[in-house]
Amino acid sequence: MITSATIIGSGNVAWHLGVALSRAGVQVKGVYSRNPEQAKALADHLSTTTILSLDHLEPTDLVLMAVADDAIRELSQFFPSDQLVAHTSGSVAMDQLREGRRGVFYPLQTFSKLKSVELKAVPLCVEAETDLDQASLMQLARLLSTRVELITSEQRKQLHLAAVFVSNFVNQLYREAEQLLNGAQLDFNLLLPLIGEVTRKLDTLSPHDAMTGPARRKDVTTINNQLQMLAADEQLRNLYRLLTDRIIADHQN
Amino acid sequence: MITSATIIGSGNVAWHLGVALSRAGVQVKGVYSRNPEQAKALADHLSTTTILSLDHLEPTDLVLMAVADDAIRELSQFFPSDQLVAHTSGSVAMDQLREGRRGVFYPLQTFSKLKSVELKAVPLCVEAETDLDQASLMQLARLLSTRVELITSEQRKQLHLAAVFVSNFVNQLYREAEQLLNGAQLDFNLLLPLIGEVTRKLDTLSPHDAMTGPARRKDVTTINNQLQMLAADEQLRNLYRLLTDRIIADHQN
Repeated sequence: MITSATIIGSGNVAWHLGVALSRAGVQVKGVYSRNPEQAKALADHLSTTTILSLDHLEPTDLVLMAVADDAIRELSQFFPSDQLVAHTSGSVAMDQLREGRRGVFYPLQTFSKLKSVELKAVPLCVEAETDLDQASLMQLARLLSTRVELITSEQRKQLHLAAVFVSNFVNQLYREAEQLLNGAQLDFNLLLPLIGEVTRKLDTLSPHDAMTGPARRKDVTTINNQLQMLAADEQLRNLYRLLTDRIIADHQN
Repeated sequence: MITSATIIGSGNVAWHLGVALSRAGVQVKGVYSRNPEQAKALADHLSTTTILSLDHLEPTDLVLMAVADDAIRELSQFFPSDQLVAHTSGSVAMDQLREGRRGVFYPLQTFSKLKSVELKAVPLCVEAETDLDQASLMQLARLLSTRVELITSEQRKQLHLAAVFVSNFVNQLYREAEQLLNGAQLDFNLLLPLIGEVTRKLDTLSPHDAMTGPARRKDVTTINNQLQMLAADEQLRNLYRLLTDRIIADHQN
């Protein structure tokens, strides 16, 4: 059972998971970050101490590494092989951690520092090198969330790619729409009811069945008019064309 | 004041607006559609009659044309110029209707027949040829929704284009994600909490400020790995690349 933890990192994920662990009764024994000021802010928030060096660290039940993907491999070398180390990344394979007791604790969510998230509903994707560590990480995950999944590194890669599509890319489409509206002196919040309904539809319809609009109807007149409206932005026009082609192909029959 | 209406069309928009008008106390005097069976289904649902021919129609306060974009111009010719005719399309200019008393009554929402929608929160975009008809249509709109806007044909075109981005195109990204997950034996509903959070963020953050992920961080390693994962689908890879480029350009500074 995991009752103590060390947190490596001080970004959005470190912050959200640190708070959640602490609330779940796990003793956070210290926070380390390459940015000492941010480390101190998080450590203060968790009523714990800032770790200034990774040498001679006191062992804890779990070292949780919520750091940039490309820092995971190198940072993991600091920990002895009998110290359980788990990273929180969607796209880094478990075997990027140094050999020994290792695992993954990936919250499938988008975190912004300024916005609190109810972790209870967030899928926590767990993986571990040994059955014993897997059991401990699963148990810990169940303290934080009602949605806990065993996911292999290979599956997690696909999951993270899919997550980029539905979060970052979807958000960029919101951004494009905002700029299109601003060009017509219209407010982005006009679109919020529509945006809400598109996601609510997913409760009862598959994305395929929920599709509507010009491409779904193969309404060539509207499609061509809209392509024409995007003539000033070649890249955005290509984006329109690509997504329209995908929809048409998906509704061929 | 509009107290009676004729509905032309029997698709999703005709169905949703017909029900809403009827509930708001407007007497729907008949339903016409090129598909007589669907016309009868809607007419029965509204306890009214099916119109079999547009010749010699009884006048009503409003003819509401919720039909395919390319049918609007021609169908509008059937009505005398002193009959108020409004279409419900996002992308067709008001002047596509025959001259005379004409207007637009565009609900900015995605409608599927199998899914009910709370119209109260849906922006209704109104336009009319005369001030008097504009006032009546605004009054009618306020009976159905708390969000009523005067929008010109030119603005409506932009609004509809933006709506395609945040509804149809976003929905297609959900579809792509679903297929990526199916390829890894993972269920699409794993992504629902993430999808919900991405839209909830818009309540407090602009799309620009809400952005996270590999492109936002200019994490070239992850971006290249993910492009590699899409190698089998050139079109999907182009889509990934385009959206990634847009995000990077949007966060240049």
